[in-house]
Amino acid sequence: MSNCLVAQSGGPTAAINASLAGVIDAVIKSNTYDTIYGSINGIQGVLQHKIISLNSTFEDKPDAIHTLMTSPAMYLGSCRYKLPSYEENVTQYEFIFETFKKMDIHAFFYIGGNDSMDTVDKLNEYAKTIDYDIKVIGIPKTIDNDLVETDHTPGFGSAAKFVATSLLEIAHDTYIYDIESVTIVEIMGRDAGWLTASAALARNDYNHAPHLIYLPEKPFSTFAFINDLNKLLKVKKNVIVAVSEGIKDDKGNYISATTAAEDKFGHAQLSGTGKALEQLVKSTIGCKVRSIELNVLQRSAMHISSLTDIKEAFMLGTEAVKSAETGLSGVMLTLNRDNTPDYSVSIGNVAIKEVANQAKSVPLEWINEAGNDVTSEMIDYLRPLIIGEPNIKYKNGIPDYLSIKHLI
Amino acid sequence: MSNCLVAQSGGPTAAINASLAGVIDAVIKSNTYDTIYGSINGIQGVLQHKIISLNSTFEDKPDAIHTLMTSPAMYLGSCRYKLPSYEENVTQYEFIFETFKKMDIHAFFYIGGNDSMDTVDKLNEYAKTIDYDIKVIGIPKTIDNDLVETDHTPGFGSAAKFVATSLLEIAHDTYIYDIESVTIVEIMGRDAGWLTASAALARNDYNHAPHLIYLPEKPFSTFAFINDLNKLLKVKKNVIVAVSEGIKDDKGNYISATTAAEDKFGHAQLSGTGKALEQLVKSTIGCKVRSIELNVLQRSAMHISSLTDIKEAFMLGTEAVKSAETGLSGVMLTLNRDNTPDYSVSIGNVAIKEVANQAKSVPLEWINEAGNDVTSEMIDYLRPLIIGEPNIKYKNGIPDYLSIKHLI
Repeated sequence: MSNCLVAQSGGPTAAINASLAGVIDAVIKSNTYDTIYGSINGIQGVLQHKIISLNSTFEDKPDAIHTLMTSPAMYLGSCRYKLPSYEENVTQYEFIFETFKKMDIHAFFYIGGNDSMDTVDKLNEYAKTIDYDIKVIGIPKTIDNDLVETDHTPGFGSAAKFVATSLLEIAHDTYIYDIESVTIVEIMGRDAGWLTASAALARNDYNHAPHLIYLPEKPFSTFAFINDLNKLLKVKKNVIVAVSEGIKDDKGNYISATTAAEDKFGHAQLSGTGKALEQLVKSTIGCKVRSIELNVLQRSAMHISSLTDIKEAFMLGTEAVKSAETGLSGVMLTLNRDNTPDYSVSIGNVAIKEVANQAKSVPLEWINEAGNDVTSEMIDYLRPLIIGEPNIKYKNGIPDYLSIKHLI
Repeated sequence: MSNCLVAQSGGPTAAINASLAGVIDAVIKSNTYDTIYGSINGIQGVLQHKIISLNSTFEDKPDAIHTLMTSPAMYLGSCRYKLPSYEENVTQYEFIFETFKKMDIHAFFYIGGNDSMDTVDKLNEYAKTIDYDIKVIGIPKTIDNDLVETDHTPGFGSAAKFVATSLLEIAHDTYIYDIESVTIVEIMGRDAGWLTASAALARNDYNHAPHLIYLPEKPFSTFAFINDLNKLLKVKKNVIVAVSEGIKDDKGNYISATTAAEDKFGHAQLSGTGKALEQLVKSTIGCKVRSIELNVLQRSAMHISSLTDIKEAFMLGTEAVKSAETGLSGVMLTLNRDNTPDYSVSIGNVAIKEVANQAKSVPLEWINEAGNDVTSEMIDYLRPLIIGEPNIKYKNGIPDYLSIKHLI
């Protein structure tokens, strides 16, 4: 028997540990691999010799597996490290594969988003060139829901549930005062508006907020925005707006004032879109205005995660192990929505080349004509993803998550 | 039989509807009052004829009472209206008491914070001058926990549980990267540091964050802050800081850059303390730094409220009705911590004059010598207040709160 390796990469989500739990559970229950190793801080952990065995922590410990499933962020830590191409720097690849040989590692499960799938692709391609037998499987996750070829991504449903719940609670908070007000809620999503769209799930019998929703897929006009607000303020006291951090004007410039910084993958680092609009409303309309940035709680608020999301993430983990066992490599697993009246999904897979370094935007037909709301098709697509509440254990009044002292 | 009136005022909390549920439940179960009226938007509702009967919505409907108990913000709406003294403007008092007479109202329950207790006091005093028989009872609430003469205030425990849980989840989010970082979490509390102190409840076996805690009760020195950070960054990768929005320098100036606005009670409106410190760290230390403002979710996140808090708030509501029945007036009910090994409280009351327009700060002996943490006495005081999780119902993936369409 040989060994296998698992790692996590990119930004955290509430569901990324559920996929890890699925991988660990499946490896422990099958007879294919002796040891399941975890690399700390993604592929960087292999380059830095930070590899731990996971068997003793999880073998015969269903409680630990359950707690891992319901713990936020990343048990194995993360990285934002982009592997150079092997033509550019073959030394890193040689080092990685020497480690794999020494540790008898013949399967590598990488749980991550867009940039992580790039790593999966590169390792799979390099393995072929040296004829090393390894199955490299990508397991998707991202709160942005912007991976192509999958109906949706693990982590998105939980983030969407947090956003929808927070919007409803902010609405309750807002309606109590008998004065005109505009509340602007800034939601994550650099280039794709999926998470901002999920604010619409806060609507119910009595609450129609958010009354306006702006996604980055359509150019944002400050003139139209103020016009939209003025129209609404004629008929309602409190207007609540959901806005993506990544909205841009018709020239492609971010509305946010602070767009200078870029991360290592060349993505602009945004913040302040809500604040910028708050200032605009203050100076043009002049009513009470507040902006709220939901910030990292969107991706880390495990306590309000979606059971559907957590279960699917776990299932993807177990399926990844089965896929490696059946000889697949260089693929990312996908969630395919079944064509049934009740929501259900099947797991498929796609060649990693089809997904790496690509992004899935919100289809324009799911945004209304005026560009200030989403359609009912969008809501029908989103709703099933936030259903169900996992059983979170508490100790001393706070969630009893799995210890990550090995990261601290 | 006569009638009674209930209203809510000030900023929302997760527990203020539980007190309302307690009042309604007790009135319906007793034979003292025929009708229980609710004033919409606090005392303003009386001045504006916005008074509704609550009997039909809640009589023989234990489910509605339970849902009200676990719904955020204020079912009856709020106001920030400060009654003038009756020497200044007797017309308003005459109008209010004519309404009371017409509607046969002989008990008034006002659920609120500091400023609301001022209203209770004034109404009670005016009633005496015209010899009108009414029992005016104040029921405390505020996430700030700054009312005097009560061990703690309803609403605080739930806000503290949200803060502690969020801090733990932010810590999980922060520890995943293998790079030096400073995370600054800005917490509500204009003049009192109770809520910021509760960030310490996020600490457990493996998590020691927040590593630094700054309350408004001690002058804040930017020099000492950078010094504290530099010392910690020598021994740990990720430093997490909890800071009150209301910290001031030794001259009494708010650290926040935007301190111009004041609310109607003359309180400075703060925001941006976290952002100001983020800029400071960026320019002096230069490592990765992020600031997070927990914002209104602190007071509205019912889904992560404290069962202890909700139960106590309900109990205060029922006790308020009993107090009026026994002839008390011009008092605020209080929570007194019993001197027992296990946490329990008894309900008392205090003359409203002893509490109105006063504020309870954190005692300096519960802040450490260096002014950058709280003591174990503080943690022992806080811990019992966040214990337990109420049963929140969900529908379509979001909390199934009580409709507030009468406010919208």
